[in-house]
Amino acid sequence: MIRVPIEGTGRFPDAWRHCVGTGRVELALRRDYQDSLKLLQDEIGFRYIRGHGLLSDGMGVHRPYEWEGARRVHHSFTYVDQVVDAYLALGIRPFLELGFMPAGLASGERTVFWWRGNVTPPRSHQEWAALVKATLTHLVDRYGLHEVRTWPIEVWNEPNLPDFWEGADEKAYHRLYEVTARAVKEVDASLQVGGPALSPGADDWLDRFAEFAERHDVPVDFVSKHAYTSGPARHVPFGTHQTLGPAQGLLDQFATPRERLKGTRLAELPVHITEFNSSYRPDNPAHDTAFHAAYLAPVLAAGGDHVDSFSYWTFSDMFEEAGPPTALFHGGFGLLTHRQVKKPAYHLYAFMARMGDELLRRGSDHLVTRHPDGRVTVLAWAPVDASGETPGPSQHRLRLSVPVEGAGEAFVRRSAVDEEHGNARTAWQRMGSPRSPRPDQLDVLHEAAEPARRHLRLPVEDGRVGLDLTLSRHEVTLVEVSAVVDEAPSWTDERRLLGRETR
Amino acid sequence: MIRVPIEGTGRFPDAWRHCVGTGRVELALRRDYQDSLKLLQDEIGFRYIRGHGLLSDGMGVHRPYEWEGARRVHHSFTYVDQVVDAYLALGIRPFLELGFMPAGLASGERTVFWWRGNVTPPRSHQEWAALVKATLTHLVDRYGLHEVRTWPIEVWNEPNLPDFWEGADEKAYHRLYEVTARAVKEVDASLQVGGPALSPGADDWLDRFAEFAERHDVPVDFVSKHAYTSGPARHVPFGTHQTLGPAQGLLDQFATPRERLKGTRLAELPVHITEFNSSYRPDNPAHDTAFHAAYLAPVLAAGGDHVDSFSYWTFSDMFEEAGPPTALFHGGFGLLTHRQVKKPAYHLYAFMARMGDELLRRGSDHLVTRHPDGRVTVLAWAPVDASGETPGPSQHRLRLSVPVEGAGEAFVRRSAVDEEHGNARTAWQRMGSPRSPRPDQLDVLHEAAEPARRHLRLPVEDGRVGLDLTLSRHEVTLVEVSAVVDEAPSWTDERRLLGRETR
Amino acid sequence: MIRVPIEGTGRFPDAWRHCVGTGRVELALRRDYQDSLKLLQDEIGFRYIRGHGLLSDGMGVHRPYEWEGARRVHHSFTYVDQVVDAYLALGIRPFLELGFMPAGLASGERTVFWWRGNVTPPRSHQEWAALVKATLTHLVDRYGLHEVRTWPIEVWNEPNLPDFWEGADEKAYHRLYEVTARAVKEVDASLQVGGPALSPGADDWLDRFAEFAERHDVPVDFVSKHAYTSGPARHVPFGTHQTLGPAQGLLDQFATPRERLKGTRLAELPVHITEFNSSYRPDNPAHDTAFHAAYLAPVLAAGGDHVDSFSYWTFSDMFEEAGPPTALFHGGFGLLTHRQVKKPAYHLYAFMARMGDELLRRGSDHLVTRHPDGRVTVLAWAPVDASGETPGPSQHRLRLSVPVEGAGEAFVRRSAVDEEHGNARTAWQRMGSPRSPRPDQLDVLHEAAEPARRHLRLPVEDGRVGLDLTLSRHEVTLVEVSAVVDEAPSWTDERRLLGRETR
Amino acid sequence: MIRVPIEGTGRFPDAWRHCVGTGRVELALRRDYQDSLKLLQDEIGFRYIRGHGLLSDGMGVHRPYEWEGARRVHHSFTYVDQVVDAYLALGIRPFLELGFMPAGLASGERTVFWWRGNVTPPRSHQEWAALVKATLTHLVDRYGLHEVRTWPIEVWNEPNLPDFWEGADEKAYHRLYEVTARAVKEVDASLQVGGPALSPGADDWLDRFAEFAERHDVPVDFVSKHAYTSGPARHVPFGTHQTLGPAQGLLDQFATPRERLKGTRLAELPVHITEFNSSYRPDNPAHDTAFHAAYLAPVLAAGGDHVDSFSYWTFSDMFEEAGPPTALFHGGFGLLTHRQVKKPAYHLYAFMARMGDELLRRGSDHLVTRHPDGRVTVLAWAPVDASGETPGPSQHRLRLSVPVEGAGEAFVRRSAVDEEHGNARTAWQRMGSPRSPRPDQLDVLHEAAEPARRHLRLPVEDGRVGLDLTLSRHEVTLVEVSAVVDEAPSWTDERRLLGRETR
Repeated sequence: MIRVPIEGTGRFPDAWRHCVGTGRVELALRRDYQDSLKLLQDEIGFRYIRGHGLLSDGMGVHRPYEWEGARRVHHSFTYVDQVVDAYLALGIRPFLELGFMPAGLASGERTVFWWRGNVTPPRSHQEWAALVKATLTHLVDRYGLHEVRTWPIEVWNEPNLPDFWEGADEKAYHRLYEVTARAVKEVDASLQVGGPALSPGADDWLDRFAEFAERHDVPVDFVSKHAYTSGPARHVPFGTHQTLGPAQGLLDQFATPRERLKGTRLAELPVHITEFNSSYRPDNPAHDTAFHAAYLAPVLAAGGDHVDSFSYWTFSDMFEEAGPPTALFHGGFGLLTHRQVKKPAYHLYAFMARMGDELLRRGSDHLVTRHPDGRVTVLAWAPVDASGETPGPSQHRLRLSVPVEGAGEAFVRRSAVDEEHGNARTAWQRMGSPRSPRPDQLDVLHEAAEPARRHLRLPVEDGRVGLDLTLSRHEVTLVEVSAVVDEAPSWTDERRLLGRETR
Repeated sequence: MIRVPIEGTGRFPDAWRHCVGTGRVELALRRDYQDSLKLLQDEIGFRYIRGHGLLSDGMGVHRPYEWEGARRVHHSFTYVDQVVDAYLALGIRPFLELGFMPAGLASGERTVFWWRGNVTPPRSHQEWAALVKATLTHLVDRYGLHEVRTWPIEVWNEPNLPDFWEGADEKAYHRLYEVTARAVKEVDASLQVGGPALSPGADDWLDRFAEFAERHDVPVDFVSKHAYTSGPARHVPFGTHQTLGPAQGLLDQFATPRERLKGTRLAELPVHITEFNSSYRPDNPAHDTAFHAAYLAPVLAAGGDHVDSFSYWTFSDMFEEAGPPTALFHGGFGLLTHRQVKKPAYHLYAFMARMGDELLRRGSDHLVTRHPDGRVTVLAWAPVDASGETPGPSQHRLRLSVPVEGAGEAFVRRSAVDEEHGNARTAWQRMGSPRSPRPDQLDVLHEAAEPARRHLRLPVEDGRVGLDLTLSRHEVTLVEVSAVVDEAPSWTDERRLLGRETR
Repeated sequence: MIRVPIEGTGRFPDAWRHCVGTGRVELALRRDYQDSLKLLQDEIGFRYIRGHGLLSDGMGVHRPYEWEGARRVHHSFTYVDQVVDAYLALGIRPFLELGFMPAGLASGERTVFWWRGNVTPPRSHQEWAALVKATLTHLVDRYGLHEVRTWPIEVWNEPNLPDFWEGADEKAYHRLYEVTARAVKEVDASLQVGGPALSPGADDWLDRFAEFAERHDVPVDFVSKHAYTSGPARHVPFGTHQTLGPAQGLLDQFATPRERLKGTRLAELPVHITEFNSSYRPDNPAHDTAFHAAYLAPVLAAGGDHVDSFSYWTFSDMFEEAGPPTALFHGGFGLLTHRQVKKPAYHLYAFMARMGDELLRRGSDHLVTRHPDGRVTVLAWAPVDASGETPGPSQHRLRLSVPVEGAGEAFVRRSAVDEEHGNARTAWQRMGSPRSPRPDQLDVLHEAAEPARRHLRLPVEDGRVGLDLTLSRHEVTLVEVSAVVDEAPSWTDERRLLGRETR
Repeated sequence: MIRVPIEGTGRFPDAWRHCVGTGRVELALRRDYQDSLKLLQDEIGFRYIRGHGLLSDGMGVHRPYEWEGARRVHHSFTYVDQVVDAYLALGIRPFLELGFMPAGLASGERTVFWWRGNVTPPRSHQEWAALVKATLTHLVDRYGLHEVRTWPIEVWNEPNLPDFWEGADEKAYHRLYEVTARAVKEVDASLQVGGPALSPGADDWLDRFAEFAERHDVPVDFVSKHAYTSGPARHVPFGTHQTLGPAQGLLDQFATPRERLKGTRLAELPVHITEFNSSYRPDNPAHDTAFHAAYLAPVLAAGGDHVDSFSYWTFSDMFEEAGPPTALFHGGFGLLTHRQVKKPAYHLYAFMARMGDELLRRGSDHLVTRHPDGRVTVLAWAPVDASGETPGPSQHRLRLSVPVEGAGEAFVRRSAVDEEHGNARTAWQRMGSPRSPRPDQLDVLHEAAEPARRHLRLPVEDGRVGLDLTLSRHEVTLVEVSAVVDEAPSWTDERRLLGRETR
């Protein structure tokens, strides 16, 4: 996967935690959503969150009315403020996506998703610009320019797909982008605007976006696109099965913007993968599995080589593009199910959040980092067969030697997720796949979702500890190694404890 | 208002707190909603909560699909369970209203409200009955029959209005009622089903409902209707002004079911006013005022004479029948605004929650009750002019004598709400009517929403304390009187304190 | 241990959770104590809590002063109320122990413990009686007679030991008991008073207590004693090693009051073991081990055969009889260490709290119960060698067949504690025995304290599931068995998931 | 009081919130203490907290033992860590006071306070130095040098009084200081050490302390003393009455260190008043009154002119120098009573916490500041007669003009505390002075403790608003003035609301 092992030192970039995806932002008003986000932020700590629908009708922002014989528009931020207040209180900032079209401003009726996001251009670009300016002005008034200038502002979503932008009309997108970017900059020149938020397979749009920006001198502060690797779909009711391309395909998709934009005016800009996942389907059971965590591990380990952020789509199963979920495990994108049951991919992220910021070594099945206080953390993963043709190897063995300073022994804490451990879906099936589990069943699932833990003491020789790791199928393992300072008093003799073997 | 003062003793019924209304139940997934409901339950403590939309698409219950060539229906309770779990955790039970029609089962396209509740009859009564049975069966499985049999089940909402039931077709409603009631009873005969949830001015439907139930031997466990007193509307953008009929009109509306149903099979059934308010508009600023609390006080004091419950419509401004609110104070039904700012009517309910269960005296401007431990509580209110022609008297005076046992002095705690106190809307206007207040402004509003408090010690003579109360315009006052047991030691001499006047 | 296996049905008594011990009640003011008690009550749920020192100086109750030339006594309940308020808020009631002697009322200077509880008789029995009456009167005023009459009131602690009662003067104790009991009954005849709270090996005091009570017609509502099984001590600094007698010895000690009191006036009274443990030392590392949980398991399983309660001494290491602890694990009595790290014995109690109230079977290494909803729970434990001569068997195997109704398959959840799992002390040692662990080390310890969990699906044959359990050394295991209702839809095919073995 | 009014601009120093006092640090383990500190930090936000007894026996730090025939000492930080963890979690840092003497290290038996702090010199200065080093080393290990070097370390408390230091032996203190300071610096030279923590009236010790430090080249990083103004005491049981000197006396006491130390090596050092209050008695009812807040207001307004900090002694009535309190209001030092009832002095501090950091004007009865966003805050207070000869004026009037930028109207929020408002003690007395109030009484007290609030809109003329303030006896008032931006829509007409006077 990672073609060249790296040995040496350097800063380990944390592009992996820069941003995370969410179902439409209106869902942020919900308690289950906020409970999940709180857990996520306590244990992982993303910096930004991005979702659709900020300007859709459910948010109640664009409110036309008649008064004294004329049509006027009121802009209302009751819900926007509740959402953003909640985000900031949870220590995460909005990565603003401007869309979709309010019904009162839309030029057509076409909608996307169960929740009916209108995907037609504005009837009036002037009224759209006024909406954008009113929104940004309000945010700056409420949260301060100092704060809001740190929030990227992305124009629309996947305009290269007819489902998301009527006719996938590129020229119309360029116009929307220009009107929006200029409106944003009128509020304050330091606000950051970008796009074009392309779906995979449309990199030629990048070339023309760069050319358009240059020709018309349109402000662009960052470039964004999406990445997915799923193959053809086989549908069952409320579910979809797909094969996947190799995980390297995600890294390859990440890499193209910097490559293609070389030599253009957009060449040095930050690149954000504002959505990525294996399958783009919110009902693909692969998302719920240990397989998925092992599949993504090398992507998280190396994605930062290529981009400034890559945003997992999405943090929670509180997501309604295909309607409200019909079962607790339903193949949703979420790192968490409703009710905060952690999926294996959640643990992959939680493990990444425990890595140090110094990169010691990276290979096709491992990542080794060090913390400023000397602790060494290892992420290791089993190889997977994304084609689905084989189950992948039942065991995978790996030997590493890691440095430990100033101690003769090391304390080793290992946390593992595989088909059996840290795997609530497995317990859920054994339990009878309860669609809406009772509280006592949720207790079991929360318990089953915890990784297996082991704690060892190992000898340090020549300043290094040898780790001999055997991973089971689809296992992702975190190993944390720290020096032992023994405070046991001199008179301690564990053999005196009742029930101890005489040594 | 209350035509005959009552002196004497008796149990004071708490029909006023039996039930409270809510915006569509899907909103119960939201955090602001749950925060408001928590506050409400901590300080008031309603028993049941009733709202529309349990079966509407947003709840995701009715999910048709194709499999092996046939149309089938899956029933999904992901959100229903989140809502009911939240209610029960907050100490309140659902008063189930079955409606509106899921799109996949509807016979037409007609909808009501901004959020588009479908108001057409089911395309298949059999599929509707299956939906009802699946829902009740699931609830019984999850929460236990012992619990669910305490939840009233109301069939549809205001079928006498074309906005809520296509064509206001009475025969179609009778059919829906019968199919539903039988489906409920098939799940368990002890479940309680009722209707017809009439809007005001349609009491003749009650006669025919009774006749229908009798003729077809249809189960009816309770009777329900609604009560409002508003007059003609004058609209401004996002707002409506109306005059009101006298508050007695609400009591008169409460009284009719028992009167009309005398002699029918429904005669002895519980009567629930499943919605009441002054104005039926969710954008009438009257709802936000001290006037409103003073207007409703006599209704809360006497409503229990006529019915088993009368449910204030609604507890929170988290309500979207006319779309998301465009300003913090917007004339919403809520006892609480978004962000939990208490309105005067909230305090009226909070005051009622401090009344005792023994009725000592009731008059046109007061209610006197006693607690088992001897504490006496007085609710007093200023008269209002509901016509809007005059502002009502600027002062109102009232003298009461209340019993205090076993002490020579009484401690008196008075809590008052009027145009100036316990009145966040007044402060909000002075502040500049901020549509979406900043956190520091919300702090001021929460503070301004607290009632004025006074604490006195009064002498007890012949076992009674005289209360001489002067109420300002639209004031509602709670007076709590308890015996003083003085524990100050014998050497106490307050005059020794620095800064005390020599006495 | 349990000499005769029991097969059959009956109510399983929960004397094991009736009461739990605590360090002196003043410690209940502390936050760590309350945090621990909250956890305990959430997961185990004891009914009563008993500790020393209610009337000791630290509680500030007995406050003599001079005024107008005379000595007077003020009784102050500032701390008593804070403690009892906290207990009731946490869902536990006080089992009141009256003692030790306030300095201002003591006849001597002799004290017990690091915290200096005065163990001398009152200088004035009249002033003692006034203290007792004032205390009970205050409690009844604040909490209600209805409540306080459910709180047992025990007179003093272990008067048969000179350390606890000057000279172990039996006659002086009888006098104290009589004065106290009569004072209690003067407050209200329904209050429950008892004693004599004997330490082990003094059952002859019971005979004379019964005789005394009968002769003088002294009120006795319950009988209490203590039970411990430790042998001779070998001390190291801040620690003690002891061998233990067999656990059966505890059950034997429990049994004597009912036996000895047969035929006396005290014969039918409730018997409370108001303290029990293996070692009576608060610095014996045995308390922190899996050995200890396995040792106690049969006592919890059978103790209710002999007494109305047996109260584990104590729930938390927040305990100062030998001074503040010098290391996180120090051999304290606690089920929990400071900072809420669970010891194996905590899990034993938490497992017991999941047992049903119907006893299906009990043997020397297991207990099988059933819940009203049909769930079957099994507690199993490995045998231990209390003499310390051998480590006990490294494995223990056990086969059981348990009933499961109405399903073809059962879901089995197993939770295990042994030398390696659910055993924070083991991790703590590997970590270097940090005396005051840092927050990151506490995180590891909390994690290491969680039992190992497994979740299986097993076939049901002839209405029974066979359980084949292999226990490791000192393991205590909880197995919970419930019927599977499979809700997986017909189209489910797990083999379609990526990474699954073809079957 | 403040002799020269100041008009102009400058930074308003916040020495007033730099530090606050506490009862002995062991009390920080208690929940009521932590609840109070949380409230304090949420609403006021002190930076440091200082109390006695860090090394006293109750903290369990110094633990001598015998092993292999020799006396050794173990240092244990179980409680120190719980205390400091709690402080840091609440956003406050320890101002370490090293004392009193552990029993095992003391040269004598003399103790101070009900809780028996040993005030004798160490038996071995070497063992004392080891204790100091072990403590600081542990703190640096656990919290980091970066953190601990911000914690001032004060050597002992009031050595000039025989109650606190045997014989008030100055030479012995100098020796203790030197040994301690050198021990601290051995841990790390950047740690800050100081003293001599003098009681009032002993400023001559300062001269000799400076001389001693210079002569022996002893490290001194800051200078500390205490300030109190109470006169002769008249005792009643559990209470003391005293007259007070004028508040200016506190400022005068603050001023002396800088004056006296001019020209010495200690001249430029920070000066900390590590304790101040009016009366030094923990049972003086003056502490509980509005008088006290008005008395202290000018001290808080001007103290920062003289010193780097002045620490109110103490934040909570959880304080036991004279034993556990015998009544809720007992004249304790606390800003808060047990159970978090706010006293008037609490509000004085909470009002100060709302002041801006730009000083606009200061006079003998007011302080005017501005915030960066333009808000102006005014603290005003009524004059008091500290002699107790007169009650002070019943009214006090004050006119101020304050700047408001960019608006035609200002929103004014006034919060007032006086004999009647924000004054739980007044309500408590009317209620019967319940020594240990019931929960319902505590509710009333919490409510009565809230300041009176008013909200106005005033016109702005020539960029200024005129404030005409009438203060009642002992009133302390906070006035917050901000510009109004009116968002009311053009169609708003409040006269249309029901119950409004026609204008």
